[in-house]
Amino acid sequence: MNENILPELKDVISAAAKISDVAVKTPLLKCEDMSQKLSAEIYVKAECLQRVGAFKFRGAYNRLSRLNDEEKKKGVVAYSSGNHAQGVAASAKLLGIDATIVMPEDSPKMKLQNTRNYGAKVVTYDRDKESREEIADNISKETGAIVVPSFEDFYIISGQGTVALEAVQQAEEKSVKFDIFMTPIGGGGLISGCSIAIKGVSPKTEIYGVEPDGFNDVQRSLESGKIESNARSSGTICDAILTQHPEKMTFTIMSNNLSGVLTVTDDEVLSAMKYAWEKMKLVVEPGASVALAAVLHGKIDVKGKKVCIVLSGGNVDEENFIKALNS
Amino acid sequence: MNENILPELKDVISAAAKISDVAVKTPLLKCEDMSQKLSAEIYVKAECLQRVGAFKFRGAYNRLSRLNDEEKKKGVVAYSSGNHAQGVAASAKLLGIDATIVMPEDSPKMKLQNTRNYGAKVVTYDRDKESREEIADNISKETGAIVVPSFEDFYIISGQGTVALEAVQQAEEKSVKFDIFMTPIGGGGLISGCSIAIKGVSPKTEIYGVEPDGFNDVQRSLESGKIESNARSSGTICDAILTQHPEKMTFTIMSNNLSGVLTVTDDEVLSAMKYAWEKMKLVVEPGASVALAAVLHGKIDVKGKKVCIVLSGGNVDEENFIKALNS
Repeated sequence: MNENILPELKDVISAAAKISDVAVKTPLLKCEDMSQKLSAEIYVKAECLQRVGAFKFRGAYNRLSRLNDEEKKKGVVAYSSGNHAQGVAASAKLLGIDATIVMPEDSPKMKLQNTRNYGAKVVTYDRDKESREEIADNISKETGAIVVPSFEDFYIISGQGTVALEAVQQAEEKSVKFDIFMTPIGGGGLISGCSIAIKGVSPKTEIYGVEPDGFNDVQRSLESGKIESNARSSGTICDAILTQHPEKMTFTIMSNNLSGVLTVTDDEVLSAMKYAWEKMKLVVEPGASVALAAVLHGKIDVKGKKVCIVLSGGNVDEENFIKALNS
Repeated sequence: MNENILPELKDVISAAAKISDVAVKTPLLKCEDMSQKLSAEIYVKAECLQRVGAFKFRGAYNRLSRLNDEEKKKGVVAYSSGNHAQGVAASAKLLGIDATIVMPEDSPKMKLQNTRNYGAKVVTYDRDKESREEIADNISKETGAIVVPSFEDFYIISGQGTVALEAVQQAEEKSVKFDIFMTPIGGGGLISGCSIAIKGVSPKTEIYGVEPDGFNDVQRSLESGKIESNARSSGTICDAILTQHPEKMTFTIMSNNLSGVLTVTDDEVLSAMKYAWEKMKLVVEPGASVALAAVLHGKIDVKGKKVCIVLSGGNVDEENFIKALNS
């Protein structure tokens, strides 16, 4: 696959067909409380209810199912702070492929354990001293395993786009057309895929991404017109979306399709997690709560609008969840 | 309505039509982790995602929507430890009816606050010293307000039955037929309505209810063949299903339709709440977790079976939820 070729709506539709037997068609839920308080119609796409507890399963399964038989025999290797790891591990198991996952040693315990439970081999590294790319490349050289990137990949992006395709279809069943569609941004795989789907099936819908304060590499990249990096590699509760910078493909797609990028603080994230727990009865992890936090904390004017917020995952440790409940 | 007439499948179908524009069609979710561990197919019907955070909205809305215009003008009064209160309050607001709710003063703070937020007048009482029935009757005599029972009512039971009707339809879409259908039991409104729906549309499915240890009034009633009461009116974490005894209608329906009643301890409930948080990303309150707890703790053999567990609500205080996370 030529790296200059960007996914299109047809590729998202193809991904949707590929994953339809194994992925959860997660519910699109209206939040009555927020809708009333904000004089808007607020819907959440509950991807925390997805297999492995995060949208990452969609892209990973789509990617792995495109490998040929020879590639499948060699196995796969991936690096990830957690949800991509689980997505690849679970997909590999379903498809009968060996998987090795390179994960930061400070990943949430639940994510490390779950990845192992899916039958993958886990190799840990020090986030501040070692390069996960190098470790994965070395494993690939030794074993011939295919490296599965966490976002910069045609099939990964197409797979993540099925979140939006599904949400728009579910909205249509309720005779709703979204004015605004919002997702968290890490490396940009989710919002890139979603933006391709949205531009294809609902072109008037505006697309916004949300990043943690101080880790706004995408916001700055879109402003400057070139790929910018984060100064730090740790220091936010939003571990799942801690990415150094977007890559060429996601940067290009986001530049083409996004109406803007917002940021939220860790405190705003904790309060959004508590809100999702109290009012929606959903468990949402910190990084997956940023778009909800942005709406709840007035970072975007939604009055009179129909808004879809992606709650992208729910894999959070007890410690951070209790912190949210006590916030 | 003659109190000797029991609801039938057609009444549940009628209720489903009545609530279809306002109730959430809650998702039926397969739990991959439990299914694998128990060599079974385990599904949950996530009624914690229902409007007001519990199935109670279904019965309350069905009941209130059957009042005639004169009755609607007089308003309604209900007594409840919480979820029925919220169901009646929210339904009354949607239908433009005044509501007064009699609630125990030790109800979870969230339930008291939410009931007020729906615009209802809340009257509190001492669970051990006062009779909520008397208080409600006095209000009814003074104002003419219609008393809305929490379970012993033709339309309430029919409304709650829509949980099972919907679950069976959703299962059919996945080509699944349930071998076992399980719900918590408080006064028996939920399981009575569900059992009527199940016997009508899926007669081979066995129906089990679950109660807290030491509050097994229904279990003992079905064993002795007459209505038995609980010795205590407090002393379990499962506040939402703390009912003294079934009434004539629910007792008769449960006697006709149930295959059995199981019990679980508070510790088993806490561990089930944590399991739902960790593996399903759902917030489930103690009383709503008893059926899940029974399956997780081996109170029923589900090997090789297709099982539907109703998670009936998610209205829980921070304190009890943190207790579950620390269990």
